[in-house]
Amino acid sequence: MRDAYHESLDAVTDELVTMSRLVGSMMQRASVALLEADRARAEAVIAADDEVDAACQELELQTTELIALQQPVATDLRIVLSAMRMSSTLERMGDLAQHVAKSARMRYPDCAVPEPLRPQFTEMAAVADRMAAKMGDVIASKDLDLAREIESDDDRMDALHREVLDVLLRQPGSTPIGEAVDITLLNRYYERFADHAVNIARRTIYLVIGERADA
Amino acid sequence: MRDAYHESLDAVTDELVTMSRLVGSMMQRASVALLEADRARAEAVIAADDEVDAACQELELQTTELIALQQPVATDLRIVLSAMRMSSTLERMGDLAQHVAKSARMRYPDCAVPEPLRPQFTEMAAVADRMAAKMGDVIASKDLDLAREIESDDDRMDALHREVLDVLLRQPGSTPIGEAVDITLLNRYYERFADHAVNIARRTIYLVIGERADA
Repeated sequence: MRDAYHESLDAVTDELVTMSRLVGSMMQRASVALLEADRARAEAVIAADDEVDAACQELELQTTELIALQQPVATDLRIVLSAMRMSSTLERMGDLAQHVAKSARMRYPDCAVPEPLRPQFTEMAAVADRMAAKMGDVIASKDLDLAREIESDDDRMDALHREVLDVLLRQPGSTPIGEAVDITLLNRYYERFADHAVNIARRTIYLVIGERADA
Repeated sequence: MRDAYHESLDAVTDELVTMSRLVGSMMQRASVALLEADRARAEAVIAADDEVDAACQELELQTTELIALQQPVATDLRIVLSAMRMSSTLERMGDLAQHVAKSARMRYPDCAVPEPLRPQFTEMAAVADRMAAKMGDVIASKDLDLAREIESDDDRMDALHREVLDVLLRQPGSTPIGEAVDITLLNRYYERFADHAVNIARRTIYLVIGERADA
């Protein structure tokens, strides 16, 4: 049986998993909005960011209260402090999904991704989905192998990021500057989203390894 | 007379001020490296980022220990938790200065900023300097008027950010795509650097207003 204290600790983890699912779904929908020039979907993602921001603020209050009232130490304290940092990271991931959706909306009814770059962006979207899904699972399960998979997914994202730049720079001089600006930023949003997922995976690894070292 | 507990709290604030000065100096030198195509200076900034990362990790340990051993509550706890978040933000500001320096290094011996955009980047550099200097002072003094000045400095940064995009999009078709990519990213680095300074200013305002509300 769990006491109230461990129930609050579990509640914090549950909240992080919920936030992970939400930002994963936001990025997934933002990618569809981007690749299919779907304005309604873009608007829905843009609106969803408030939910992430509210969840992050709520988690900040919840963790502060937990520390003040329960005064956790050692591993428990590290879990709570890690949760605070992870929630800031998740908030930032929500912002990035929102940026992708805003870029889709700005170009509507055109598609912000030109034909020659669709394969790369389609795969970046798939890699981002996969990383976000694993990130939620890692927070819930503390599965270290899965956490390490996120790092190798990130290698693929970095390769795609470079490929997009290569394609962009190889384009004939006719590429409009506005398009180059959009692609440069979109490319960066996906890369940063992936970096944040890695950050969360590494924090989880550090927590677990730390727990083992403490044991 | 200050007891050991309040001395540790003060030490945390001092460390944040030191980090602020460091990231401010990094961005200032990165801007000079960028505008003067000064490779040695760029290298120095790139190397300095390790110092910021180490300071951030050190602060994370220091604050975790402080919470575990001293179990601060109410305002003191909020100060310590805020410090943890601010240190992540400062670490990110150091990364952005490093990105600017890397862009300068990549284009060396050329200057990454083309002639028509030098006025805007020169002013963005000046605004970033000013904001970073005020940020350090705000952390040290909790001066709310100064914190609010950071927000209005950010309005100027946002205006410059839009101006850079306007100039870029108005350029004749001859702008090389590589140059457009660089400028788009540099523009974003300065804008994000400023956003982070605002974030720290707002956290300080929230802390002080919170303290007043508690009193």
